Amino acid sequence: MSDYGKAFALWREGSATPWRDYTRHAFVEGLRDGSLPREAFLHYLRQDYVFLIHFSRAWALAAVKSDNLDEMKAAAATVNALVNHEMQLHVETCAAEGITEADLQATPEAAANLAYTRYVLEAGFSGDFLDLMAALAPCVLGYGEIGARLGKEATSQTYKGWIDTYAGDDYQEVCRDVGALIDAALVRRLGEDYTQTPRWSALSKHFDTATRLEVSFWDMGLTP
Amino acid sequence: MSDYGKAFALWREGSATPWRDYTRHAFVEGLRDGSLPREAFLHYLRQDYVFLIHFSRAWALAAVKSDNLDEMKAAAATVNALVNHEMQLHVETCAAEGITEADLQATPEAAANLAYTRYVLEAGFSGDFLDLMAALAPCVLGYGEIGARLGKEATSQTYKGWIDTYAGDDYQEVCRDVGALIDAALVRRLGEDYTQTPRWSALSKHFDTATRLEVSFWDMGLTP
Amino acid sequence: MSDYGKAFALWREGSATPWRDYTRHAFVEGLRDGSLPREAFLHYLRQDYVFLIHFSRAWALAAVKSDNLDEMKAAAATVNALVNHEMQLHVETCAAEGITEADLQATPEAAANLAYTRYVLEAGFSGDFLDLMAALAPCVLGYGEIGARLGKEATSQTYKGWIDTYAGDDYQEVCRDVGALIDAALVRRLGEDYTQTPRWSALSKHFDTATRLEVSFWDMGLTP
Amino acid sequence: MSDYGKAFALWREGSATPWRDYTRHAFVEGLRDGSLPREAFLHYLRQDYVFLIHFSRAWALAAVKSDNLDEMKAAAATVNALVNHEMQLHVETCAAEGITEADLQATPEAAANLAYTRYVLEAGFSGDFLDLMAALAPCVLGYGEIGARLGKEATSQTYKGWIDTYAGDDYQEVCRDVGALIDAALVRRLGEDYTQTPRWSALSKHFDTATRLEVSFWDMGLTP
Repeated sequence: MSDYGKAFALWREGSATPWRDYTRHAFVEGLRDGSLPREAFLHYLRQDYVFLIHFSRAWALAAVKSDNLDEMKAAAATVNALVNHEMQLHVETCAAEGITEADLQATPEAAANLAYTRYVLEAGFSGDFLDLMAALAPCVLGYGEIGARLGKEATSQTYKGWIDTYAGDDYQEVCRDVGALIDAALVRRLGEDYTQTPRWSALSKHFDTATRLEVSFWDMGLTP
Repeated sequence: MSDYGKAFALWREGSATPWRDYTRHAFVEGLRDGSLPREAFLHYLRQDYVFLIHFSRAWALAAVKSDNLDEMKAAAATVNALVNHEMQLHVETCAAEGITEADLQATPEAAANLAYTRYVLEAGFSGDFLDLMAALAPCVLGYGEIGARLGKEATSQTYKGWIDTYAGDDYQEVCRDVGALIDAALVRRLGEDYTQTPRWSALSKHFDTATRLEVSFWDMGLTP
Repeated sequence: MSDYGKAFALWREGSATPWRDYTRHAFVEGLRDGSLPREAFLHYLRQDYVFLIHFSRAWALAAVKSDNLDEMKAAAATVNALVNHEMQLHVETCAAEGITEADLQATPEAAANLAYTRYVLEAGFSGDFLDLMAALAPCVLGYGEIGARLGKEATSQTYKGWIDTYAGDDYQEVCRDVGALIDAALVRRLGEDYTQTPRWSALSKHFDTATRLEVSFWDMGLTP
Repeated sequence: MSDYGKAFALWREGSATPWRDYTRHAFVEGLRDGSLPREAFLHYLRQDYVFLIHFSRAWALAAVKSDNLDEMKAAAATVNALVNHEMQLHVETCAAEGITEADLQATPEAAANLAYTRYVLEAGFSGDFLDLMAALAPCVLGYGEIGARLGKEATSQTYKGWIDTYAGDDYQEVCRDVGALIDAALVRRLGEDYTQTPRWSALSKHFDTATRLEVSFWDMGLTP
């Protein structure tokens, strides 16, 4: 098990079935053994470009909702990394497949994509920093867990580039940092016994819903 | 054609196919001729209860985003009507079918339901009053148009209660008021030639997306 | 001491000095003994009209940020009462003084007025329902406390109309309801021991800051 | 005259008096000729630290409210520069004066400071990207104009460090970029004739109010 902090471990345990559906999804297994059709992967990449735009907006909202400089620095650095680096990587990967940046920008947003990002953003707008973190966690940390596992278990080179990105030290460090950010934010607002407050179950619900929306995102990826 | 103002007429024309898919959906036709399975109708009512909670929140957001007292009064009256009256009607209709308020509150939110309301709320949070109005319009005015048509074309008494609500003078007046509110808000912010501004196409996109999400909502209604 | 619930009692105790500066302000004493210059009172009424617009928007935001139907109903009813009744009362009081509604709408917003309402709204947008309630409480409940006291201690009839409004049963009931809404919202999110969570001090800070902004508002009222 | 684009030139012209009050304020003249008391400068620096936290949050909100990748990149880079660089510079300048980072974090927020940042943030939350830009412009671009002038007209070395920061090529480039960002955002949303839409006067009002709040901020700086 990846160690991305205490809250994540508890949330994952509390959403065991959807978490497994997400992290062991047929799409993921197809990345692992190379059986994922190229067409599905490219469809996923296009949708993920649109996803990353809204996901970056959600991390920017985390900076808005921070209540101390450490949280702001972490959120600002994440936005910058997403917008000025990860999206660039995406553009380059797609370019190598003959998909231009103009194609990416013209991608019609799939229903499962829209549902997921708007859920996360709305949770953040309507709630506070913690609501947003709970809704953001499954994507960031789930990709970390998937990447770490496939880094060890992959039986094919076909999707090595994708796997290396998320299995790599850089991304794994991001996951540990985000896990630590979440743990500190919980204690800072709700105290050491945060799991004893009613807020904890509301936050766990956000984590659970976002995890289910990840499952739908993979489902969508399989049906170009 | 129902006359709910100029902007609505243009938006509807610009989204002719999804608008038809929405307002002539099999679910709607089943209400008209009474062929809609009871189970589907009750499933829809349960989901609509959850929908109305978030829809009311979106109208409350319209009051927040108003920039004059007339808009605030209109939005505040709508929220009050939704929360303190329409939801009550819902509760009573459901009670007559043996569905308690506790059942309603415990309804798990369907994916198509969540996608729609979060889209509308997020459009409002991220944009201004006009973005929110464009995303709210298909629900309010589409139900008006459906109600008005079924009021004339229904061939069955089975769903007479539902039809009468939306065909009735009260609801039709709400639709004319909302249409007028939107027209005035557009002129007030963008000028008489508002369709010539780039904003108009962004607003039309919100209307179009929300209309497509209405289609998915009916689809969901048909599959309890 | 007015009994508007547990959280209010604790907040007031924790901000004893600014609370006294607010509720025993020279402006308030001038209302009590009739010594407040008419010019100052009319200046205050004009600014309060602008204040109420933004204050109503803040209560609408509370409806958006509610997480259950009871909170929504309370917030929606408050917005409706403010926008469709209290503001009307304001307009009528001002009309009796020769100030037209057009005058009211043209009132340039004083700096102390702007500072207060934007603080409250921003606390609500950036935080959750509790942050908003803590920032809204000093105005709603302070006017209740001032009204109740002046209802007993007034030595002049000059500002009887104003005093009767806030001393009256209707307004006192609103205060008890808002106090109960806040107490329930705290328990619902943070548990019975909510004062033991770090959130409590952040909320108390909002209450304290908003109380200080009320003092500045009275100061502004005295300097037309 | 600094050339930071078309919209800025029009806004500045439309708010000529407050703009002059802001950019030729006694505080500014004291920086120019070295007559500003050290105590006032340090008071200003402390408050500016608190200001920059909320100002960074407002730029993060601009990333949230962007509707294309270019706007997001610009906003994200600005947040990152503010949070991870400009604030660091601040900390170092203060440290050289014996003010620790802990002192900075413990600074009680002055009323004029709070009024300004909450106004900007609320304008952004309630409105769209343009509302936020109009409210952010006076600070960013006014400091550019002040810096550029003092770079030429300073008659003392006392505040050379401060002046060099804002007169320097890096900051001047930021100003030209922000001016271009605003011009492009206006055309993108309202069309080439954006000054002919009613929105333009609402945006000009934001610029005007924020400029007046800058004047109050300098006033506050002069009274430690």
